[in-house]
Amino acid sequence: MASKHLINSPSTLVIESLEGLCLLNPELKLDRDARVLFWPMFHSPLQKVALICGGGSGHEPAHAAFVGKGLLTAAVSGSVFASPSGKQVRRAVELVHLHNATSDGIEQGAGTLIIVKNYTGDILNFGLAKEALASSPNYADSVRFLTVADDVSVPRSRITLVGRRGLAGTVLVYKITGELAARGASLDEVEKIGQYVTENLATIGVATGHSHVPGTERGQDALGKDEIEIGMGIHNEPGVLRLRGSNGAPPPLSEIMSRLITLLTASQEEDSERGWVSFSPSTDIVLMVNNLGGLSPLELSAVLLEATKTISQKGLRIKRVLCGTYMTSLNMPGFSLTLLKLPSMEQNTGQGPSQDLIISLLDALPEAPGWGWTSHRPPVALSEQAVTSSLFLSRSLSSSKSSTTTKEDAKEVVGAIERACNALIHAEPELTRMDTVAGDGDCGLTLKAGAEGVLSLLRSNEISGNNLSDVFVAIAGVAEDKMGGTSGGLYSIFFSALAQGLQPSASTMKVDWPYALHHALTKLYTYTRARPPSRTLVDPLDAFVNSLHTEKTDLMSALKKAQEAARATRGMQAKAGRAVYGGGEGGEGEMDPGAWGVVVLLNAIVDEKGQTGKAQ
Amino acid sequence: MASKHLINSPSTLVIESLEGLCLLNPELKLDRDARVLFWPMFHSPLQKVALICGGGSGHEPAHAAFVGKGLLTAAVSGSVFASPSGKQVRRAVELVHLHNATSDGIEQGAGTLIIVKNYTGDILNFGLAKEALASSPNYADSVRFLTVADDVSVPRSRITLVGRRGLAGTVLVYKITGELAARGASLDEVEKIGQYVTENLATIGVATGHSHVPGTERGQDALGKDEIEIGMGIHNEPGVLRLRGSNGAPPPLSEIMSRLITLLTASQEEDSERGWVSFSPSTDIVLMVNNLGGLSPLELSAVLLEATKTISQKGLRIKRVLCGTYMTSLNMPGFSLTLLKLPSMEQNTGQGPSQDLIISLLDALPEAPGWGWTSHRPPVALSEQAVTSSLFLSRSLSSSKSSTTTKEDAKEVVGAIERACNALIHAEPELTRMDTVAGDGDCGLTLKAGAEGVLSLLRSNEISGNNLSDVFVAIAGVAEDKMGGTSGGLYSIFFSALAQGLQPSASTMKVDWPYALHHALTKLYTYTRARPPSRTLVDPLDAFVNSLHTEKTDLMSALKKAQEAARATRGMQAKAGRAVYGGGEGGEGEMDPGAWGVVVLLNAIVDEKGQTGKAQ
Repeated sequence: MASKHLINSPSTLVIESLEGLCLLNPELKLDRDARVLFWPMFHSPLQKVALICGGGSGHEPAHAAFVGKGLLTAAVSGSVFASPSGKQVRRAVELVHLHNATSDGIEQGAGTLIIVKNYTGDILNFGLAKEALASSPNYADSVRFLTVADDVSVPRSRITLVGRRGLAGTVLVYKITGELAARGASLDEVEKIGQYVTENLATIGVATGHSHVPGTERGQDALGKDEIEIGMGIHNEPGVLRLRGSNGAPPPLSEIMSRLITLLTASQEEDSERGWVSFSPSTDIVLMVNNLGGLSPLELSAVLLEATKTISQKGLRIKRVLCGTYMTSLNMPGFSLTLLKLPSMEQNTGQGPSQDLIISLLDALPEAPGWGWTSHRPPVALSEQAVTSSLFLSRSLSSSKSSTTTKEDAKEVVGAIERACNALIHAEPELTRMDTVAGDGDCGLTLKAGAEGVLSLLRSNEISGNNLSDVFVAIAGVAEDKMGGTSGGLYSIFFSALAQGLQPSASTMKVDWPYALHHALTKLYTYTRARPPSRTLVDPLDAFVNSLHTEKTDLMSALKKAQEAARATRGMQAKAGRAVYGGGEGGEGEMDPGAWGVVVLLNAIVDEKGQTGKAQ
Repeated sequence: MASKHLINSPSTLVIESLEGLCLLNPELKLDRDARVLFWPMFHSPLQKVALICGGGSGHEPAHAAFVGKGLLTAAVSGSVFASPSGKQVRRAVELVHLHNATSDGIEQGAGTLIIVKNYTGDILNFGLAKEALASSPNYADSVRFLTVADDVSVPRSRITLVGRRGLAGTVLVYKITGELAARGASLDEVEKIGQYVTENLATIGVATGHSHVPGTERGQDALGKDEIEIGMGIHNEPGVLRLRGSNGAPPPLSEIMSRLITLLTASQEEDSERGWVSFSPSTDIVLMVNNLGGLSPLELSAVLLEATKTISQKGLRIKRVLCGTYMTSLNMPGFSLTLLKLPSMEQNTGQGPSQDLIISLLDALPEAPGWGWTSHRPPVALSEQAVTSSLFLSRSLSSSKSSTTTKEDAKEVVGAIERACNALIHAEPELTRMDTVAGDGDCGLTLKAGAEGVLSLLRSNEISGNNLSDVFVAIAGVAEDKMGGTSGGLYSIFFSALAQGLQPSASTMKVDWPYALHHALTKLYTYTRARPPSRTLVDPLDAFVNSLHTEKTDLMSALKKAQEAARATRGMQAKAGRAVYGGGEGGEGEMDPGAWGVVVLLNAIVDEKGQTGKAQ
């Protein structure tokens, strides 16, 4: 349980959050004293039914971030996890129920529907506001009250007097009623569809821990590190069931999901404590996966997959999926699942709303900051979305298979590559020793692995030397596959770019090595900012290439420059690599092994005898 | 740092999350092996530029949940916080770059722009894919590479070779380029605007702790309980500055925000380690407030407010605000701020994009699950959104001020109310004693406070007894204001409903008390499920009302029934109230003090001598 917060003070948090929402939607108005956020334009051009929801804060985006066209007309906010007062609620009704109260006298709107989550405090405070207003003829018959109670976790026998709790399903109630109201429906029609949705909702939550209310003492997190709790309420009310995993971690999601879906869908015959809504195989449903606030979005999508799989195994048919953050418990690390049972497509008796109507109301895009994505389509089988072709469309990316070198040239190229590979393999112990002192010790083995991969291609004649561009495309592939990591990436880019640099030579059969090497180095520099002196492989490579290309020296002189550059890395501080962000380490007494590896390679190519200058 | 997760296994989490996204958008395709999620229809009907982004997972919705119309064409995902391989990236390009590759032969698209956050691994792997492809003429000139580096936290002197990190500003780059591509712009145009946005971005993050990577050991949370860290990276890289608050809590948000905005907007003259983008007073900007994954939405909106205030004080002009979850570090408890400097409206020289173009590209609604709300308008001054009228439009809600009782009746009513109030005040010590044993001890004082409030109205003649409905509207108001809590709510509803029930009597001047009381009880029952026997005030109230209304008894008999019902609460288990959800406590030896309070009140009304039956 994270008990730290990024706030000014617990007492100002709620009003500051509401003012933040005003910044997100300039069309909204805020009554600061009553903490009522509302959308004054809802009745334009038609008189429309106003929708009000509210309750304690800490459940955002519910409810204030859902105020806007096609959703709530007003939201009234209590303190964190505490009901607003009756006065606040009455103010919310007054702000949206009557129109033109100041100019042409009072004009009745199309009525107001108050939607309340079933908690004792909310019911009382919203109720006393409604009943206080009901003694006035302006309000008497045109303010209605709808209670949402969608939790299935707490056993029926324990809640005979308080009823089920209201959870994230509440959001579906006002999404559907809100859109119907926006289309100009009457108060009776809006209330009726709201009742239908309410009666067909089932929600259950699960979390790995509690959330922390700003300004309160940090409580003890009662759950063990391998435990999760099913049925935990959105105000940290205890749940009904704890599951414990093995190996010190919570149980796998599939096991948790199986329990959740059983609790959600069991009939009253199967579970006398539940079965609030009757789901049978082939029932059409809407599935909402709701982040309780502190679950990573990475996990949430995977939860949607698991929920869909488990529900589909039960035979239920998912017509729509919603997955996002709808009703939180601050930043509680968990999620809730809501199933909305839809009217059957087959047996529409004319009683109640049709499935098409409910789906169209759900699909419509409202104008409220809190609302997220709706797909407008049922999910399809994952196999339909899978691309099943082989991993790579084209293994070889080279353009031409024609020979671009003479036989003599080809033999020479292959010989040089072979020498370089053998030299790197031979140098492995020395490079490993150097890297063990100064780095993570894998430099020698990485280069050896690459060298062995290239030798293997030579032996199988996959590198023939006939087309130089192809040769280096192949070597770039080996660097990527066999070496990996940063050095593999740098080598792979260099050799790919070298292959590109050698293409202009193809027609002339004359190889312009200085040009091609310089092209490769220039390309490499678009992907790394390492520049000499950097204590990386760039130092000798840059020295070698620029000696050949810019200073037009011979190979032996260029090699000498590379050797000098590599030796100069001794005692130099690292300047590249992710460790730099954290501060980096001091210079080391060893040469950089990556830089020395370049020298080993170049030496073998330039000097046919394969004599490498001593590292020390 | 929460180290528990709701997952099947760390190794399957990423692919399961990608499959979850497929369920959310059936138009997407997924290459499971390469972990590439893409939108194959992007080139229809026109050939359009494809946009690819990617990187390690754990930053959702970035990048996979942004694949769709008007945003990314493809996202390629590595493991959590690890770059995808070059092969994966190459596959992503191949999947979107060429069209009709299988039927009519290869057809060139309009080109591909690869957008990469500046991290060594990402740059290398995305780079080697691009360079490997560049040796083929199908790709050579039509795959471009754009690196985003928007962090301002790490000092310039420490990152000369690695550059700034790529953070949430990356999302703005592909929002703007993605919409331009969707409008059919050329590869040059898309790349150019992407470069413009990249060069004008500044981002900084702050968190109260690290995030935990599934499958790794739980690390030590290095931050104290009063510490926050500025500049923490999205892979838990250490930040550059820690702030410590007083009183054991982190510093107030305003103090943190001041530091963040200074780091973001300081010129290079003011801060030689920063000043990457030149912001001056009256610079037009876009502000993005991004949840790093584990901040409650309640806090996030308040962060937006504080950021807006602090930025406005610097004179910068905010043209758009975005606030939501764009690029996370799993469920890191923190946020990042991104400023995008817009082209000046005044000095449009024709060089670079216009402000209007960038704003229109940002405002357009894409079709991707991860994208949230855009206001399409600049924020306005909060004073314009504030409703400044007094808290209540109408203090008195009663419809009529005309007298509805005779003078004798009025005197009798006022007398009965006065007796009831005095009796409740007198009974306070006894009720407190009873509630101390069985409840939270406030029952006696709550009733006393209500009684004193009513007596005060009587003394100031605000309750005159002339209009019975008004009398009980006023008493309902006192119950709401002075009592509060559950019992205040129940009394307030009952008296409001009693006022409604008395309205039909108004014209006849004849008071039908049994009808009015029964109406009030019936209304009360729509807000509480407590029914006798419930060990609440409902037990004697129900007995009294139903004796009068249903059994047509006289007042004294009804009072006796109420007394019996209250005494029967002794030894009864509580069945109402929020505690019930958690299991409830055992029965108590005391009567319920709330029930006995009703008897005290009724007794005083019925029996003019004010003799209350003994509680014991």
